[in-house]
Amino acid sequence: MTDKNRPTTGISDHTAERIWVRGADLVNDLIGGLTFTEMIVFHLTGKRPTRAQTVLLDAVLVTLMEHGLTPSAIVTRLTYDAAPEALQSAVAAGVLGVGSTFIGTMEGCAALIEEILAAPEGVEARARAVAERHRKERKPMHGFGHPYHRPDDPRPPRLFALAEREGVPGRHIAALKTLAAEVDRAYGRHLTINATGAVAAVLGEIGIPQAVMRGIAVISRAAGLVGHVLEERERPSARWIWETTEGGIPYDGERP
Amino acid sequence: MTDKNRPTTGISDHTAERIWVRGADLVNDLIGGLTFTEMIVFHLTGKRPTRAQTVLLDAVLVTLMEHGLTPSAIVTRLTYDAAPEALQSAVAAGVLGVGSTFIGTMEGCAALIEEILAAPEGVEARARAVAERHRKERKPMHGFGHPYHRPDDPRPPRLFALAEREGVPGRHIAALKTLAAEVDRAYGRHLTINATGAVAAVLGEIGIPQAVMRGIAVISRAAGLVGHVLEERERPSARWIWETTEGGIPYDGERP
Amino acid sequence: MTDKNRPTTGISDHTAERIWVRGADLVNDLIGGLTFTEMIVFHLTGKRPTRAQTVLLDAVLVTLMEHGLTPSAIVTRLTYDAAPEALQSAVAAGVLGVGSTFIGTMEGCAALIEEILAAPEGVEARARAVAERHRKERKPMHGFGHPYHRPDDPRPPRLFALAEREGVPGRHIAALKTLAAEVDRAYGRHLTINATGAVAAVLGEIGIPQAVMRGIAVISRAAGLVGHVLEERERPSARWIWETTEGGIPYDGERP
Amino acid sequence: MTDKNRPTTGISDHTAERIWVRGADLVNDLIGGLTFTEMIVFHLTGKRPTRAQTVLLDAVLVTLMEHGLTPSAIVTRLTYDAAPEALQSAVAAGVLGVGSTFIGTMEGCAALIEEILAAPEGVEARARAVAERHRKERKPMHGFGHPYHRPDDPRPPRLFALAEREGVPGRHIAALKTLAAEVDRAYGRHLTINATGAVAAVLGEIGIPQAVMRGIAVISRAAGLVGHVLEERERPSARWIWETTEGGIPYDGERP
Repeated sequence: MTDKNRPTTGISDHTAERIWVRGADLVNDLIGGLTFTEMIVFHLTGKRPTRAQTVLLDAVLVTLMEHGLTPSAIVTRLTYDAAPEALQSAVAAGVLGVGSTFIGTMEGCAALIEEILAAPEGVEARARAVAERHRKERKPMHGFGHPYHRPDDPRPPRLFALAEREGVPGRHIAALKTLAAEVDRAYGRHLTINATGAVAAVLGEIGIPQAVMRGIAVISRAAGLVGHVLEERERPSARWIWETTEGGIPYDGERP
Repeated sequence: MTDKNRPTTGISDHTAERIWVRGADLVNDLIGGLTFTEMIVFHLTGKRPTRAQTVLLDAVLVTLMEHGLTPSAIVTRLTYDAAPEALQSAVAAGVLGVGSTFIGTMEGCAALIEEILAAPEGVEARARAVAERHRKERKPMHGFGHPYHRPDDPRPPRLFALAEREGVPGRHIAALKTLAAEVDRAYGRHLTINATGAVAAVLGEIGIPQAVMRGIAVISRAAGLVGHVLEERERPSARWIWETTEGGIPYDGERP
Repeated sequence: MTDKNRPTTGISDHTAERIWVRGADLVNDLIGGLTFTEMIVFHLTGKRPTRAQTVLLDAVLVTLMEHGLTPSAIVTRLTYDAAPEALQSAVAAGVLGVGSTFIGTMEGCAALIEEILAAPEGVEARARAVAERHRKERKPMHGFGHPYHRPDDPRPPRLFALAEREGVPGRHIAALKTLAAEVDRAYGRHLTINATGAVAAVLGEIGIPQAVMRGIAVISRAAGLVGHVLEERERPSARWIWETTEGGIPYDGERP
Repeated sequence: MTDKNRPTTGISDHTAERIWVRGADLVNDLIGGLTFTEMIVFHLTGKRPTRAQTVLLDAVLVTLMEHGLTPSAIVTRLTYDAAPEALQSAVAAGVLGVGSTFIGTMEGCAALIEEILAAPEGVEARARAVAERHRKERKPMHGFGHPYHRPDDPRPPRLFALAEREGVPGRHIAALKTLAAEVDRAYGRHLTINATGAVAAVLGEIGIPQAVMRGIAVISRAAGLVGHVLEERERPSARWIWETTEGGIPYDGERP
C-alpha cells in the first residue's frame, strides 16, 4: 500500500505528557470539563455540545438504559454466571442483542424520517405514501407499536416535551408525528410511536448521524447491563432461568 | 425449583402506562431529571447521586473513553469493516478487550487498596509489605506503570485534584499514594500511578463496588468505540491495518 | 402465554443416565460412532450423513479454517493479549468478523444460485440477467473476485473436483459455473469464483440450509482462531500490531 | 519496534496460486486429504494426527457439542431473535458462556492431573493431598460432580473405553481415576467424574495443550449453537423464554 493510501485519524494523539482527543487537551480541558454525555457529543461531532444536545442525549441515554429482564439482560446474566472471570464478556454478550429486531428499529425509523423530510412532494404526501407502502407490503413500521405499552408508549411524549423545551428546530419530530397520523389512517387502528421511534427523531434533531444511532443504544444498554451483573451477583437468577427454560420447553423427538 | 428459590429483581417493572427503575418513575422522574452519569450511579447504588459522585464518575468516564488506536479500537474497526450489518458486534468485539491486561488492572489495584485500608497494622506498614511482596514475587503492580506516559501519567493528578475539590473522604486515594511511595522505594525506581490505578481509587471514594469497576470501563470505552466506527466509515483504516499486519509478519514455515 | 404457544425442541433431552440428541443415544451411539463433521450434518438435518455429505462438509470446513493473519485472526490475537483470562472471548471476538463483507458473501451467492435454479426461463437466461443486473447496478457479485488470488482462486476447482468424485447431483455447481461465464461476459473481464462462492454451491449440493451457511464458516473459523491463540501464546504479535498501527496512522487533528 | 522484535508466524502463507497452512499445501494436500478434526490436530500440533488423536478428538467434539437448552443455547436463541442480521453474533454470544463455571472446569481439572503426574511423591499420595486440600478449603473440585447426571455421568466411561481401545498411554486417565477414588474418600460420598473431567484427561492423552483445551469446547459448542439457530428459525422459543423469565421473576422494589 502506498503512502497515498495511508489512513489518518482525527480522534486522538499523545506524547509522554499530553493526550489530545478531537483537538482538545484531554487532561486539562476535557476531564472535569465535560460530562460523559457532553464528551460523547464532542467525540461524535467534533464540536462542543449545545445545551440542547446534552440535555436530549442524556434523556435518550436514560430512556434506553433499562427495561427489566429483557433478552439482553437475560443474556448478560446467564453469561456472567457461566464466565464470571470476564465481566466484559457478559456485557458484550448482552450488547450483541442490540440488533435489528428491537433497538435497531431506530435506524429504520430514522431512515423513514429522512425520506419524508427530503421528499419534493412535501412531508404529508410522502408520510402518507410511506404508511400505505408499509401496510400494503406488510413490512414492519420501524419505530411504531409496542408489545407492553398500549395504547401508548409513555416515553415518546416525555422526550418530545423535553425537545420542545430545549428549543430544537423540531423538523424530525414533526415529520414523525405526521407519519404517525398517516400510519393510524392507513392501518385503520392506532399504533403508538414507541421509544425507539421517538429516539430516532430526537437524535436526528441534535445531529447524531443515523449510521451510528444504534451505537447510542449500545452505550446506554451497556450501562444497564452492568447493573444487571451487580444484581446477579447479589440475587442470582441464572440457574432459575436455565431450569425454567429447560423444564418448560419439552423435547418431542425420539428416545430410542 | 420451589417458590422459595424463585429469584426477585429490584431493578425494573412496568405496566402499560408506567415504567419503574430502582423504585423511581422512569418517565416522569428520571428522563429529563437525571443525566446519564447520574442514572448510572442511581442504577448501581439505588440512591440518588451526590454531586461528588456525579462529577467524579463523569471524570472517570471521560478519562477512560479514548486513547487512540488501542487494541480495542483496532478490533472494532476491523470487525465493523467485516460485518457492517451489525454495529453492535463491532462495539462488542472491542469491549471484549476490556480485560485483565490493561483496563482490568483497576480491579487488582482496588483490591490492593482495600487490603491496605483493612490492615490492622496500619496503611503504611501494609503498603510497604504489598510493594515488597510484588517485587519479590515479580508480580505486576496493578495500577502502576505505563508504556507511553513516563515518568508520569498525566491523568491521575487531574483526577485526584477533582476528588479533592469535591471533598471526598480521600482514604482510598491516600492509601494509593502511600502505596506509590512504597513501590518506588521497593523497586528502587519511579513507577507512575497510571490511569486505571487512579480510577480504582476514585471509584472507591464514590462507592462503586470493586466487582463492577471493570463495567465502568466497558461503558466508557463503548462510547469511544462508537466514535471509531463513525471515523472508520468516513476514513477507512481496516484494510490498511490488515495489509500492514499481513505484510509485516513473515511466515517462517515450510512451502513444499 | 398459553400452553398452545409453548415451544418444543427436537434437539436434546436427558435423564440421569441417558442423553438423546436428535433422537439418537449420545453416549452409546454418537460418541465414537460419528465423526464431528458427521455429527454436524446429523444435528443440522436430523439424518445420518451420506458419504458425500461428510466428505464435502469436511472439505468445506478445512477450506475456510485458515488464511493467515486475516482480520479475524488479528482481532482474536489482540483480544487474547488484552483478556487472557477468557480464551472464549478472544475466539468470539474473531468470530464476530465472520460477517457480510467476506465470509457472509456465501449467503448472497447461495441466494443467487437458488434464484437461477428456480427461474422458469431457465438457468442460462437467468444467469445472464443476474450478471447484467449486478453490473448495471454496480452491486458486488457475491462469491466472485478475490484480492489475492488472481486470476483464479485455487480452492474452487478442488472443491468441485471432490464434489464430482463423490457423485453429487451437481445442479448448484453447474448453476454457479453458468453464472461465472455470464459474469465474465457482462463485465468484459474475468472474475474468479472465489472460495465462498464455491462453498455456497457445494453446501447447496449437500443440503445445508442457506440460512445457516454462515454458521459453517463460524465453526470452521473458530477452529483456526484457537490455533492463532496458541501461536499468540508462543510468539506474541499483538503488541507489534498495536504499535505498528498506532505508529502508521498519523493524527491530523489539532494539538492546542 | 526494531526488526529484532518483529514477530513471525508459522501458520499460513499464500501466493496468488497457492496457500500453505502449517507447512502443507492447503488446496492439493489438506482439502480432501484431512477431515476437519484431523485438520484441527494438524493446526494445533503442526503434525499429522495419529488415528488415536483423530478418534478421540472426534469423540470429545461430539461429547461437548450438545446438551439441550443450556445457558449457551438460550443466549444464542435470544440473540438471534434480537439480531437476525448477524448469525455470527448469536453464535459468538453463546460461545461467551464457555467460561470458567461449566466448561472451563476442564482446564482446572487438567491442571490437577498435571500436578498429580508431576509429583515426586507419586500419583496416589498427591491425589490424596489434592482431594483433601479441596475439601478442607471448600474449593470446587473441577471435573467432578454434575447437577443432572447422578450418581454417574454416562459420558466419561464411554470416552475412557474409546481411549483404551485406541491404545493411548493412559497416564492422564489413570491419574484422574486415582483422584476420583481419593475424592470419594475425602468427601465421604461419591462424586462422579463429569464430562469435562473426562475430556481433560482424554485431551491430555492426545497432546492438546492445556492452555487451549477450552478452545476445543468453543469449537464443539459453536457447532451445536448453529443447530439451535436453525431450530429457533423453525420453532421460535425466544419470546417464550423472555415472557416466562419476566413473568416469573417478580419486582420487589417500590412503585411510587
